[in-house]
Amino acid sequence: MRAVKYGVTRDYVRGLEVVLPTGEIVNFGGKVVKNSSGYAMKDLIVGSEGTLGIVTKAVLKLLPLPKKAISLLIPFPTLQQAIRTVPLIIKSKSIPTAVEFMEREVILDSEEYLGRKFPDHQADAYLLLKFDGNSTQEIEDYYDNVAKICLQQGAVDVLISDTDERNDSIWKARGAFLEAIKSSTTYMDEADVVVPRSLVNEMVEYTHALQKEVGVRIKTFGHAGDGNLHAYILKDDLSDEVWKERLSAVMDKMYAKARELDGQVSGEHGIGFAKRPYLKESLSPEIIKLMQGIKKVFDPNNILNPHKVCEN
Amino acid sequence: MRAVKYGVTRDYVRGLEVVLPTGEIVNFGGKVVKNSSGYAMKDLIVGSEGTLGIVTKAVLKLLPLPKKAISLLIPFPTLQQAIRTVPLIIKSKSIPTAVEFMEREVILDSEEYLGRKFPDHQADAYLLLKFDGNSTQEIEDYYDNVAKICLQQGAVDVLISDTDERNDSIWKARGAFLEAIKSSTTYMDEADVVVPRSLVNEMVEYTHALQKEVGVRIKTFGHAGDGNLHAYILKDDLSDEVWKERLSAVMDKMYAKARELDGQVSGEHGIGFAKRPYLKESLSPEIIKLMQGIKKVFDPNNILNPHKVCEN
Repeated sequence: MRAVKYGVTRDYVRGLEVVLPTGEIVNFGGKVVKNSSGYAMKDLIVGSEGTLGIVTKAVLKLLPLPKKAISLLIPFPTLQQAIRTVPLIIKSKSIPTAVEFMEREVILDSEEYLGRKFPDHQADAYLLLKFDGNSTQEIEDYYDNVAKICLQQGAVDVLISDTDERNDSIWKARGAFLEAIKSSTTYMDEADVVVPRSLVNEMVEYTHALQKEVGVRIKTFGHAGDGNLHAYILKDDLSDEVWKERLSAVMDKMYAKARELDGQVSGEHGIGFAKRPYLKESLSPEIIKLMQGIKKVFDPNNILNPHKVCEN
Repeated sequence: MRAVKYGVTRDYVRGLEVVLPTGEIVNFGGKVVKNSSGYAMKDLIVGSEGTLGIVTKAVLKLLPLPKKAISLLIPFPTLQQAIRTVPLIIKSKSIPTAVEFMEREVILDSEEYLGRKFPDHQADAYLLLKFDGNSTQEIEDYYDNVAKICLQQGAVDVLISDTDERNDSIWKARGAFLEAIKSSTTYMDEADVVVPRSLVNEMVEYTHALQKEVGVRIKTFGHAGDGNLHAYILKDDLSDEVWKERLSAVMDKMYAKARELDGQVSGEHGIGFAKRPYLKESLSPEIIKLMQGIKKVFDPNNILNPHKVCEN
């Protein structure tokens, strides 16, 4: 969730030791800050889900840990108000470390799951922001501006959390969401779409509305600040047949909406086996063909994690 | 040169519109912060030097401009002392925006070329550091520590440059180095090796010593902070025959040294046509074969910038 400020894992990988399907061990990149020496092989391996080679060593870029961190918990009367505020925060140049959104329902689930109270649970939706930096002054300059934006957009309050206890209680609840949702139903499936972050509100509102349209519970939370929405579709007491039908309807509609918003099938979870049909729908046939060609160059005998990502 | 703090261009490219050799127009990535939807095609295109496709549009990540910047010009009695201080600065966690090193000779060239004086030219070598941030306090915290390190390592002085005029005069001289070196000789060739930044001093000292060993002038300056050394080998009044021989000896030795230090052939300039033999020497045959395979997947008829990078 810190991709908002710090970028993604790939940006921090400098070199990889990789075992190729032939058994050869090669090194892509290395302990160098810059590299323009041929094609970006280490970038190609990152996110290839074990289909091109097996990573046996990684050289990573490290950053000094920021000295201070402050969290803001911002209750809003409605989910719509909360989520529509996100693009305004991004545009304000205040660079939060993370921007998460949460619905009241999910918080109630996680309170029950954890057996402890969330600091505030009067509101219908929340934004949870983190700021970090090397001095309190630096962080305050950032969040003052963001607090103003949120209040202008109808936030009920801005709870500033600068003690370890308070931070702990908020982020523990956030960390328990997934388990809490799981424990509230019989079975679930998930989507991990990513859209341009100026459109994250459209995606969330669409997903929310799908619950009634298709007749299935969907819980959403996620990385509002980077446009990456985690949606959990819950089976509850639906029969296997009805569940299969409705799940498929939800997935089809969500991925179609993501495409319409110039989004992508997966922000961070990857494609694996289950998301293959959606990847094929979302990318042009030329791109799929190129990906299949790359797979063949690395693994002509198809022995590494076969039938995954772009393969038939 | 800001890669020290901000990373490389690839990290800021989110999406690319690319024309393939077939004439098809495809989009790799997009306006999304994260993407795990199949192989990292946009990363593969970045740095492929026009051999895989033609980029016709790019979606970039932008950062808010830092509000303040301060430069430090730090004279040292010897190049060795200056360059040996660089790894200590990097390890101090003070995150400079740029760390450049300069030799006295190169500064004299650029003074002559620009017709204006460098703020200080009593010393044999200089480190030029830039720090940026959102407040003077934030930046001062960083550079205080670095100034101490430099003085401990024998720096003659630490000149803090916080006015536009002074900054301008230092960075103009830095910007004129390449032209100044060019104007001081009849012809030149360049290398762009990159090594782990804890070893940049070894690489610089080795290159410096090569001048006497091979009998050719070599001027170096560059991005000490990211291990990327620009070395200019000068023809001066050597005959074409002798020049060819000595240039080839310098290049062979420099690239061999870079390999020994786990470096790479190119930090930022790329491979093109001239560096192909050195790329082949520096990478294992398996990697070259994979790169050639990728080229063939994209461009089976070899119509895009042929005979470049990894091709025969």
